[in-house]
Amino acid sequence: MSDHPAKISPVILSGGSGTRLWPLSRTGRPKQLLALTHAETMLQLTARRADDAQRFTSPIVVANAAHVSQIETQLAKVGVEPASLILEPVARNTAPAIALAALIAEPGSLLLVMPSDHVIADVDAFRSAIEAAVPLAGEGWLVTFGIAPQAPDTGYGYIRAGASLGDRVQRVDRFVEKPDRPTAEGYLAEGCYFWNGGIFLFRADAYLQALDMHAPGIAAAARASLEQARCEGRRVFPDADAFAASPSDSIDYAVMEKADRVAVAPVDMGWSDVGSWDALHEIAMKDAADNAHHGEIVAIDTSGCLIRSDGPLVAAVGVKDLIVIATGDAVLIMPRGSSQEVKRAVEELKKTGHVTLDRPSP
Amino acid sequence: MSDHPAKISPVILSGGSGTRLWPLSRTGRPKQLLALTHAETMLQLTARRADDAQRFTSPIVVANAAHVSQIETQLAKVGVEPASLILEPVARNTAPAIALAALIAEPGSLLLVMPSDHVIADVDAFRSAIEAAVPLAGEGWLVTFGIAPQAPDTGYGYIRAGASLGDRVQRVDRFVEKPDRPTAEGYLAEGCYFWNGGIFLFRADAYLQALDMHAPGIAAAARASLEQARCEGRRVFPDADAFAASPSDSIDYAVMEKADRVAVAPVDMGWSDVGSWDALHEIAMKDAADNAHHGEIVAIDTSGCLIRSDGPLVAAVGVKDLIVIATGDAVLIMPRGSSQEVKRAVEELKKTGHVTLDRPSP
Repeated sequence: MSDHPAKISPVILSGGSGTRLWPLSRTGRPKQLLALTHAETMLQLTARRADDAQRFTSPIVVANAAHVSQIETQLAKVGVEPASLILEPVARNTAPAIALAALIAEPGSLLLVMPSDHVIADVDAFRSAIEAAVPLAGEGWLVTFGIAPQAPDTGYGYIRAGASLGDRVQRVDRFVEKPDRPTAEGYLAEGCYFWNGGIFLFRADAYLQALDMHAPGIAAAARASLEQARCEGRRVFPDADAFAASPSDSIDYAVMEKADRVAVAPVDMGWSDVGSWDALHEIAMKDAADNAHHGEIVAIDTSGCLIRSDGPLVAAVGVKDLIVIATGDAVLIMPRGSSQEVKRAVEELKKTGHVTLDRPSP
Repeated sequence: MSDHPAKISPVILSGGSGTRLWPLSRTGRPKQLLALTHAETMLQLTARRADDAQRFTSPIVVANAAHVSQIETQLAKVGVEPASLILEPVARNTAPAIALAALIAEPGSLLLVMPSDHVIADVDAFRSAIEAAVPLAGEGWLVTFGIAPQAPDTGYGYIRAGASLGDRVQRVDRFVEKPDRPTAEGYLAEGCYFWNGGIFLFRADAYLQALDMHAPGIAAAARASLEQARCEGRRVFPDADAFAASPSDSIDYAVMEKADRVAVAPVDMGWSDVGSWDALHEIAMKDAADNAHHGEIVAIDTSGCLIRSDGPLVAAVGVKDLIVIATGDAVLIMPRGSSQEVKRAVEELKKTGHVTLDRPSP
């Protein structure tokens, strides 16, 4: 290792448009653009995790073209100017999105790929795990960060870590799908399983080489879309037809599970993907009665509630273990512990052609 | 009795500004001006109960001056033009309000005094009870209508009916305050107790005579305020200082409990004062799962809920026995069966000087 290692290039993926945090999260304002856990948005927190100019270059951001102005505004507010802002004309999942970033980056540069909608409480632990992964990544390994599991969660894929490859890095034995509960409990007991958090470190050329081998259609579509790209300053618009021709697949399925030299860097860093209102209640600051309130809330005799308003005053009296999310045009109410059911409400709203689903916020 | 009895003059009291149905009911838009049970508002339903021109004159309406245009508009929509619209500069409870109406009416005319915010499902039964009360009222008795109790409710005053005074009219034995639960159960078992619904029939001069005797300060203030009144067409503006000088008291305390010739006409007419969200759930149309929904609601796996929105879409998933009331600027959530607790929320909002309490609806 050199005393002056090459800088790492953050790649921030902002393509998601999930509905799991409806009604706050909408197609026009997805989770990563919301301030859920801090005054800063998830995107801003992500960018600031890698804003140390001694160690990182400016980030490459891959995003939904519809969000371009929100993204630029949010990043500017925390003093981050992207090296490139690649604007996807359509969503094709993570493997093609990362391919675009890898093609734009210098071939030998190290890419730190980060979803834009995760929480990491202990950034120092994250940085330390990155440094542990740098030597292997520099040698051409594809490194994923394995999140030390806190519970037998059935909502994540798991990574089984195998033989040591050095300080705090191990070969990936295998990736496993979201397990059932007993299986997850077994993983937790074994101690060599980690959550797959979707954070990666690798050389741009190593990723493209693996992509060419295991998902050549994705690699070809990404190259074609950039050959015909339109640029406006730092904004890059890949050709819509060429990019739309790409297969839609995740980096896990398309590359990581198939490639040879794949490593995991285990890390315990207070990670959460804030994948549901229940998850937000878990990581939020709570009062003595286990309530997490945000916005204009009057709560009397309430306990165990997540009550959040970005619009109306919410008055709750004598309720417990509820999730209440209010925006200017919609209110969601459900028991805590069942927030995956929000999908059913969203399905119902889509089915009835409900106009409020994507009505812009006031 | 003549074949052509003198017409009855309805007196509609619209002075209330309760907070028991917050956040829908506000100072600027109290319960009687809301459509809670039907497409028509409580005020409109009240006026239509006595809109038979063969039997009733146009009503005298006594109301808060702040609501004048809403009242005129609502009444016009159901084809009712008040004989007089007496606009109180301040609220002084029902005894002074009724005194104003009695002073404006012909001395010998029969006044049917009705709160403007009650529901009566069986209007024929009401009309029939009125006819039963007419002869006694014509002789100068003060007649109150006694609501056949449906349950041992502790939220109402009760009237104990005594000796018969004719067909379906009895002397009032005594008025009793809101009882505790065991007492209320005893009343229900005895069968001679009725709820005091605040609906009355008497001659204008009989009321004023009793008022002069038992509450001369109220009578004097009412007279003085009308002597100096300003009139604009049918609108009557009693002098503010003179009316403000009146003691504030209810007709029950000031007159009915003290006067000699007081009768009760028992009636079973599907009456409700809709005094709480729980009461509204009770009388509302409900689906098979005991839900009463109103407005833009998506309810999945919900039961026993009152969900009402005059503004945002409300999505409820997997909740039961909740009251959810949403307006453009406030949302109330509480368990069913505890809706008297809404007062605590309103108190809290007043205490914190919360601006949204009376923010006008959009």
